[in-house]
Amino acid sequence: MAPTSETLTAERILEATEEVLRRHGPAKATVVDVARALGVSHGSVYRHFRTKAALREAVTKRWLDRTSERLAGIVETGGSPEERLRAWLAALFEAKRHKAGDDPELFATYTVLADENGAAVGEHIADLTGQLTRIITAGAGSGTFEVSDPAAAARAVFQATGRFHDPCHAREWIRPGVDEEFTAVVDLLLRGLSSPSP
Amino acid sequence: MAPTSETLTAERILEATEEVLRRHGPAKATVVDVARALGVSHGSVYRHFRTKAALREAVTKRWLDRTSERLAGIVETGGSPEERLRAWLAALFEAKRHKAGDDPELFATYTVLADENGAAVGEHIADLTGQLTRIITAGAGSGTFEVSDPAAAARAVFQATGRFHDPCHAREWIRPGVDEEFTAVVDLLLRGLSSPSP
Repeated sequence: MAPTSETLTAERILEATEEVLRRHGPAKATVVDVARALGVSHGSVYRHFRTKAALREAVTKRWLDRTSERLAGIVETGGSPEERLRAWLAALFEAKRHKAGDDPELFATYTVLADENGAAVGEHIADLTGQLTRIITAGAGSGTFEVSDPAAAARAVFQATGRFHDPCHAREWIRPGVDEEFTAVVDLLLRGLSSPSP
Repeated sequence: MAPTSETLTAERILEATEEVLRRHGPAKATVVDVARALGVSHGSVYRHFRTKAALREAVTKRWLDRTSERLAGIVETGGSPEERLRAWLAALFEAKRHKAGDDPELFATYTVLADENGAAVGEHIADLTGQLTRIITAGAGSGTFEVSDPAAAARAVFQATGRFHDPCHAREWIRPGVDEEFTAVVDLLLRGLSSPSP
């Protein structure tokens, strides 16, 4: 049943947009396709998202937020800061690898969208490094990590593990040995965080 | 003057191929274009490179080797292992950033060629991590680095600095603050290499 103006929510439009993107790819998907999929006029879609660009940005943000929300739980769990840092980085790698492996076409579509939406990606990275900062701050407080600037350390850890979460490396995530490589990088970074500054 | 069969060397063909790639792009460049640029028959080119694929692989390897040769000198220079490691990583970043910035079209062309020539790229990475291994081995020998497996540590350092040398990150190399980010990652890795294993 087509939604009425009361039941047509932003969330339903975003779900339909993802489905349209999956079917048509990022180059061909239009607002008219989204409206048709919902059985509404394109004017109804534009009441929620004023431009096609705004709709594409919102669907990109929703996709990225799914990963951040999944990771946020790990920040607050029990375990030592070192255990939480390892678990968080492993969960980030797993989340990205699953997105890339389970539905490669949708992943490629979102990679295109992410390239278009630098601001949404910037917020996503700020969100993730904020979570990392909280773990590293806890470790600095308990004396596990020897870190004077947790936010800077979080950025360095995030960037040094880019091979295991940046979409441009997705092809490398299915190579044999990649899990051992991930562990070697994380071990080295944890040793760095735990050692006294020179 | 067109080269004769005596003066037509593999090196001259590779120079001409780079020029043809620069002019036509990777999709359109042909062996006939290369032969025409040299004033020879395409048969003369095929006497040196038996297929178009072999020619493309050789020109990719030559491009990659230019970076490795530049860095090889740093491995053997004076200075502590820590200084050499910093200098080597900085030189790698600079070399890649210059290639990307000085001639973006040629860089994009070689990025396409590198994607096609996984074996040449694999050898290049093995060459670079081999150089890194020699520096880390020297540091392990002198007690600067607490490393039991220098080759594994070299791979981890290479991968953890991928943001600053992997072509898929080229767009990030001109952002403000990238030099400070590079230093923060290298500092953290050096702290990791220098601290006792847990």
